[in-house]
Amino acid sequence: MSLQTLGFESDYARFFAEDDLQGNAFYLNQLPTDEVECILKIKSDVRLSGLPYFVGAFNYLGAKLDYKNFEQYEGKNYKKGEVITFKLPFAIALSGERIALNLLQQSTRISTFTEKFVAIAANKNTKILDTRKTTPGLRQLEKYAVRVGGAHNHRFSQSDAWMIKDNHKTFFGGLEGAWKYFQSMQTFYQNIIVEIHSLEELKLAFDLGVKNIMLDNFSQDDLRSAIAMKKPGVTYEVSGGVKLETLNDFLLDGIDVISIGALTHSAPHIDLSMKIRPVG
Amino acid sequence: MSLQTLGFESDYARFFAEDDLQGNAFYLNQLPTDEVECILKIKSDVRLSGLPYFVGAFNYLGAKLDYKNFEQYEGKNYKKGEVITFKLPFAIALSGERIALNLLQQSTRISTFTEKFVAIAANKNTKILDTRKTTPGLRQLEKYAVRVGGAHNHRFSQSDAWMIKDNHKTFFGGLEGAWKYFQSMQTFYQNIIVEIHSLEELKLAFDLGVKNIMLDNFSQDDLRSAIAMKKPGVTYEVSGGVKLETLNDFLLDGIDVISIGALTHSAPHIDLSMKIRPVG
Amino acid sequence: MSLQTLGFESDYARFFAEDDLQGNAFYLNQLPTDEVECILKIKSDVRLSGLPYFVGAFNYLGAKLDYKNFEQYEGKNYKKGEVITFKLPFAIALSGERIALNLLQQSTRISTFTEKFVAIAANKNTKILDTRKTTPGLRQLEKYAVRVGGAHNHRFSQSDAWMIKDNHKTFFGGLEGAWKYFQSMQTFYQNIIVEIHSLEELKLAFDLGVKNIMLDNFSQDDLRSAIAMKKPGVTYEVSGGVKLETLNDFLLDGIDVISIGALTHSAPHIDLSMKIRPVG
Amino acid sequence: MSLQTLGFESDYARFFAEDDLQGNAFYLNQLPTDEVECILKIKSDVRLSGLPYFVGAFNYLGAKLDYKNFEQYEGKNYKKGEVITFKLPFAIALSGERIALNLLQQSTRISTFTEKFVAIAANKNTKILDTRKTTPGLRQLEKYAVRVGGAHNHRFSQSDAWMIKDNHKTFFGGLEGAWKYFQSMQTFYQNIIVEIHSLEELKLAFDLGVKNIMLDNFSQDDLRSAIAMKKPGVTYEVSGGVKLETLNDFLLDGIDVISIGALTHSAPHIDLSMKIRPVG
Amino acid sequence: MSLQTLGFESDYARFFAEDDLQGNAFYLNQLPTDEVECILKIKSDVRLSGLPYFVGAFNYLGAKLDYKNFEQYEGKNYKKGEVITFKLPFAIALSGERIALNLLQQSTRISTFTEKFVAIAANKNTKILDTRKTTPGLRQLEKYAVRVGGAHNHRFSQSDAWMIKDNHKTFFGGLEGAWKYFQSMQTFYQNIIVEIHSLEELKLAFDLGVKNIMLDNFSQDDLRSAIAMKKPGVTYEVSGGVKLETLNDFLLDGIDVISIGALTHSAPHIDLSMKIRPVG
Amino acid sequence: MSLQTLGFESDYARFFAEDDLQGNAFYLNQLPTDEVECILKIKSDVRLSGLPYFVGAFNYLGAKLDYKNFEQYEGKNYKKGEVITFKLPFAIALSGERIALNLLQQSTRISTFTEKFVAIAANKNTKILDTRKTTPGLRQLEKYAVRVGGAHNHRFSQSDAWMIKDNHKTFFGGLEGAWKYFQSMQTFYQNIIVEIHSLEELKLAFDLGVKNIMLDNFSQDDLRSAIAMKKPGVTYEVSGGVKLETLNDFLLDGIDVISIGALTHSAPHIDLSMKIRPVG
Repeated sequence: MSLQTLGFESDYARFFAEDDLQGNAFYLNQLPTDEVECILKIKSDVRLSGLPYFVGAFNYLGAKLDYKNFEQYEGKNYKKGEVITFKLPFAIALSGERIALNLLQQSTRISTFTEKFVAIAANKNTKILDTRKTTPGLRQLEKYAVRVGGAHNHRFSQSDAWMIKDNHKTFFGGLEGAWKYFQSMQTFYQNIIVEIHSLEELKLAFDLGVKNIMLDNFSQDDLRSAIAMKKPGVTYEVSGGVKLETLNDFLLDGIDVISIGALTHSAPHIDLSMKIRPVG
Repeated sequence: MSLQTLGFESDYARFFAEDDLQGNAFYLNQLPTDEVECILKIKSDVRLSGLPYFVGAFNYLGAKLDYKNFEQYEGKNYKKGEVITFKLPFAIALSGERIALNLLQQSTRISTFTEKFVAIAANKNTKILDTRKTTPGLRQLEKYAVRVGGAHNHRFSQSDAWMIKDNHKTFFGGLEGAWKYFQSMQTFYQNIIVEIHSLEELKLAFDLGVKNIMLDNFSQDDLRSAIAMKKPGVTYEVSGGVKLETLNDFLLDGIDVISIGALTHSAPHIDLSMKIRPVG
Repeated sequence: MSLQTLGFESDYARFFAEDDLQGNAFYLNQLPTDEVECILKIKSDVRLSGLPYFVGAFNYLGAKLDYKNFEQYEGKNYKKGEVITFKLPFAIALSGERIALNLLQQSTRISTFTEKFVAIAANKNTKILDTRKTTPGLRQLEKYAVRVGGAHNHRFSQSDAWMIKDNHKTFFGGLEGAWKYFQSMQTFYQNIIVEIHSLEELKLAFDLGVKNIMLDNFSQDDLRSAIAMKKPGVTYEVSGGVKLETLNDFLLDGIDVISIGALTHSAPHIDLSMKIRPVG
Repeated sequence: MSLQTLGFESDYARFFAEDDLQGNAFYLNQLPTDEVECILKIKSDVRLSGLPYFVGAFNYLGAKLDYKNFEQYEGKNYKKGEVITFKLPFAIALSGERIALNLLQQSTRISTFTEKFVAIAANKNTKILDTRKTTPGLRQLEKYAVRVGGAHNHRFSQSDAWMIKDNHKTFFGGLEGAWKYFQSMQTFYQNIIVEIHSLEELKLAFDLGVKNIMLDNFSQDDLRSAIAMKKPGVTYEVSGGVKLETLNDFLLDGIDVISIGALTHSAPHIDLSMKIRPVG
Repeated sequence: MSLQTLGFESDYARFFAEDDLQGNAFYLNQLPTDEVECILKIKSDVRLSGLPYFVGAFNYLGAKLDYKNFEQYEGKNYKKGEVITFKLPFAIALSGERIALNLLQQSTRISTFTEKFVAIAANKNTKILDTRKTTPGLRQLEKYAVRVGGAHNHRFSQSDAWMIKDNHKTFFGGLEGAWKYFQSMQTFYQNIIVEIHSLEELKLAFDLGVKNIMLDNFSQDDLRSAIAMKKPGVTYEVSGGVKLETLNDFLLDGIDVISIGALTHSAPHIDLSMKIRPVG
Repeated sequence: MSLQTLGFESDYARFFAEDDLQGNAFYLNQLPTDEVECILKIKSDVRLSGLPYFVGAFNYLGAKLDYKNFEQYEGKNYKKGEVITFKLPFAIALSGERIALNLLQQSTRISTFTEKFVAIAANKNTKILDTRKTTPGLRQLEKYAVRVGGAHNHRFSQSDAWMIKDNHKTFFGGLEGAWKYFQSMQTFYQNIIVEIHSLEELKLAFDLGVKNIMLDNFSQDDLRSAIAMKKPGVTYEVSGGVKLETLNDFLLDGIDVISIGALTHSAPHIDLSMKIRPVG
């Protein structure tokens, strides 16, 4: 097990089962195992990420790639047309290629897209966060890709922090009911984030002593009013459909973080492929 | 287990583990279990798909939703603003919402995008196929979504059929070597698909007796020449970067299928959310 | 979970994965689910066993068969040509048939063959036992089938009792060394069985105080001498290539049990099939 | 993981659990780990197969056997009395022996029996195929053993190809209904095999355009008539109780393959054992 | 799956495997399944907890106990000699009893012991917390038992909050180095708790802006000084060998929480047993 | 896999999942991996045991500790204040420490407590046994710890031997009914232990031919009478609340073993910790 893919081992089993590991086993036993040179072709401009997962896929099939030789490429920016080369037994190269590339593309698309948001926020006091809108089963990979892209992670799981949303308020008869309920359940070191939809509600949140506030779909005017009302020790998160084109409008002093689901759910596909050639 | 999510049970375990099932268990035990009305809000124009997975996520947490009540919505087209309602215990609604929506969005984005390709190909003799460029761990869901979108599935796994690609030809010293090798390994009822890159190579393929031919990145001119050369009992698949805008150029008599990776890797995000309100 | 297949649940997952559960899932979703009548056709004379596993296979795919309705058939003798009928959704009947029959045949072949040995030993004081020579992964089913055939189970696993064999004696420099070693390791309620190869060795075993003796490949003469030497509180097991034809020679007073690997590894195949017809 | 037992790793866990891995763990910790010489004794005439599984069982317990040293023995014919030697720590040799031998015997029995069929079909144009009548949980091993025996594999799983059988015809109101139904569900590269029971039905199959035909339990006369009716591009499979003694009757020009369930379900037990002796 | 034991399902598989589920399966199939009355005997003064796990164990074996009927007993105080009755099939009662009781005793011992601490802290402003010193594999159960005992949970897992301890300071060359390192890694909503060993170090922590401070093994004098130094928005946790007898000394205004490993690792065994009698 | 923790591999997965393996993976990737010296501090007088599990926990995270270097410490007695040192990468030391220590403490507390009983029984003919009152999920570790403490193991699982208890007698209408029932179910090499509650019942047991007798909560007088009645070939086990202070009263000639639940359920917590310092 390598540190890089700790907790990911059983996922390979699943990915290859989906691609018919047992048929694969036949295949691997029949294909020649001569070593070939592999050329990873980068066919879009990218911030490359996910090589630990890429390497791990081949190693799952019995290759002995050393991730240390790939570390230099991880998180680097590449231009369309650049290549990375390494060696594998032919049988493993062919059998693992599709899964390995699918993983690398999923990670790289997110790092590449995230970097564009981070570039806009450079030199500002507002950080870019992801959300829990990740592909089921790939949250670890996708949140890793966000960090390689230069942004920060919001909570990883539901229990890392509690969040009071619309639905909670509806059920508990408003913010105050929900807040009291969650406070009674809170473990001591767990934060409670409260989603706020209006300036009046924001005032109520202050009265209740809320420390972590998410301003949901606020207009620019309301945002500025909210900033003016901000109290010491309180954090502001902006959320709600922020896009590359509108990001700059939200990079305001007083806004601590902006959480953007698009980092993971709308990163455009990037193209990578793998070719082989005889060694020597 | 329902027929719809057969083979998907252990995936829920994984998806909820990722979202901290154990923390969730605390949470579920503490949140009230009063029944609430849930409103699934459709916030983009979509062909909705993936409700079996959506329903299954809540049932994994102990809900007793009957998929039969949702069957009427599956595969239907919805306009932005339409809603679907159903009932759940509050604790389960809140704890399962994010995973359930992530799955539904992943499926619906693909059905919605696929339908656009299928609409263009209507009344033509060429079928639209997907590829193995699916999200690792979600191939079953994604290939299902393609079919709900009206297209057909290419091979599900590596062993369903064998495909001779560039890399095989490189290794075996050309098409002839690869073809002979794969014929010697073939099980009796398995097809061998051959990726062809030029008209000369196509001729060789005919000489070798290849039945399933994939024309890779052929120009329009070469495509027409290839069609003219086609022999009885042979199938033609077109592949290579076909997009919505260019699809029509490839819908030619003599082309049996077009395989399009974009169906699964480039379907744009669509927006769905879930709200609750007290029952009656 | 039913009592009958407790501890067998995850095996179904494996059996159906081997038969491509995921492809199956597609299949099940597409095949009609109308209820049909199923006819289990018995095509050899058998002692039928394994219906809990047969029923469990269909239930794993979502059927709701109640084993109580099948209990009357389990362990009964049937003549070639007899049938058993029940109802299933068409999709499940077709998808589960091969696995369900493979399990039922594996169990029934053993019960049927075991019964022949047991019939010969009827009215004798010697019991028939199985061995650990079972199909990897199916020991629970096969040892169950032995009991339905009327014989008894030897130890289920290596740790149920310890057995000193040739190889232990070789390593520890003879029976005495091995016996002392195993005594020092023994937990209080665990038996140690000693494999004995000659009358001299048998004498040594008595001197050492061995209680459970396995006479391995003894000639009829030596067997009679061994019986004459038997001491109170000692048990004799005969082992080594006993067959249907030779069984009678070993059913001697003083021989407590005969263990026969053939019960599980050489039971002849028996033929069962399943047909469907429309309901009423 | 070695290429040879890819996808088989978790099976060892199961096999040893069945033999009480935890008790085993105690045992292994207590037995001496001195290296001993192991002698695999071949006690029947065999075509030996399954050494990858045999070796894997000991390695699962922590041995470091290199399969490369065993490769020379795999698939070779041996006479009763021949031996193969190698070295293991005593504790592992004794704890793994039963499972390792059970696997090796299961594979070797099938290779040995298959070879007898293949010898009869030598120099004929008809290939020998296996079926899906394999031991649940061991299909990969058993289909591998068939190939070592010189025969070919039929479909590995239900989804590799679709097969229209009696039961489908019954449900869909005859061959035509079933064929239309399956065609509508077919993925593009998947074959549909049709089981045919009479010459009239064969004619209908030709009219429908069926390409892959299985002639089920045809008389010799009907078989010859069917061969006379055969059309170009069509394949014929013969199936139904073909035995060693009757095989020759079916090896006719025009019959492409004969599928024989007996290869896996009726291969007679062969005897192997393992003895140890001190090193040097 | 019930809400109460969500995420605990696979643990039962493990617990019963340890008690030989497969042997158990034989046992269950052989023991009569007549319904009997079960009497849970409480043989120590306790705060009873863990009934969801107790009930779940029997249900894992196929019982149909409804936890709702047990809810009234959970978290209640009982005197030695009191009993709780319910019904089970005999086979399940006997096979599940040991595991069910082991779980119930593990939970009840912790609730009972925790309650003694909580009683002393009643009417004080300091809360009692547990630690991560839990039995491997039972953290969910043990942290639940702490809450039933009236105390609160510290972080559930290593990633819920980060804690800077001695070892981190050693590695990073002191508190300042460690603090900077962890701040650079922190996700936005994650707290960092700092273990402080002296008043000087406390001062440094204030200078660095640390918000969550753990005072480790402070003397009473130093504790009072620390309280005097406390700043707004800062929390104080006391830790280090606090026992029932010394707890009162630490219940000071200004100390927010006291974390006590003994709640889970030193709760004295309490005695429970289960008897059966015929129904009616 | 090492022999020492065979069958324990998947448990680490569970223990670290509980401590958030995925968050851990992030953590491990971010923490420096420089090698540090680790000091295991022994803070109570102990018989140290469980180092295989301790070492295994770090190795699960990717360390390469060789258990051979720790073997010398296992099962040795240590005084408070002694230390054991070894080296680890910083990231692994910090991430694995809590789980590794929890396991080591659970084992050591039992070995240390067991040794006290064994010391009292030294030079007597009565052996000390444990029971099945172990922590669910840790039976292997706890029974191992008992043996390191110098005592012996009772049956590991329910199926190792059968035990007739009060509840069986109640159900089967008394000892005779239960005994006959269990005899009819017994496999040949399995012992049946009978729990006896009075001298009259003991007499009945002799009449029935019971060989393994457990004297449950007998008074000293009754115990002496029972010893006087003992027959050859019979074993006596004493059970029922035997404590360190009362043990000596039961160490009588004629009592073969005393089983003591307290060995595992009441062993007092012992304190161990781990500190690091820079290498060299």
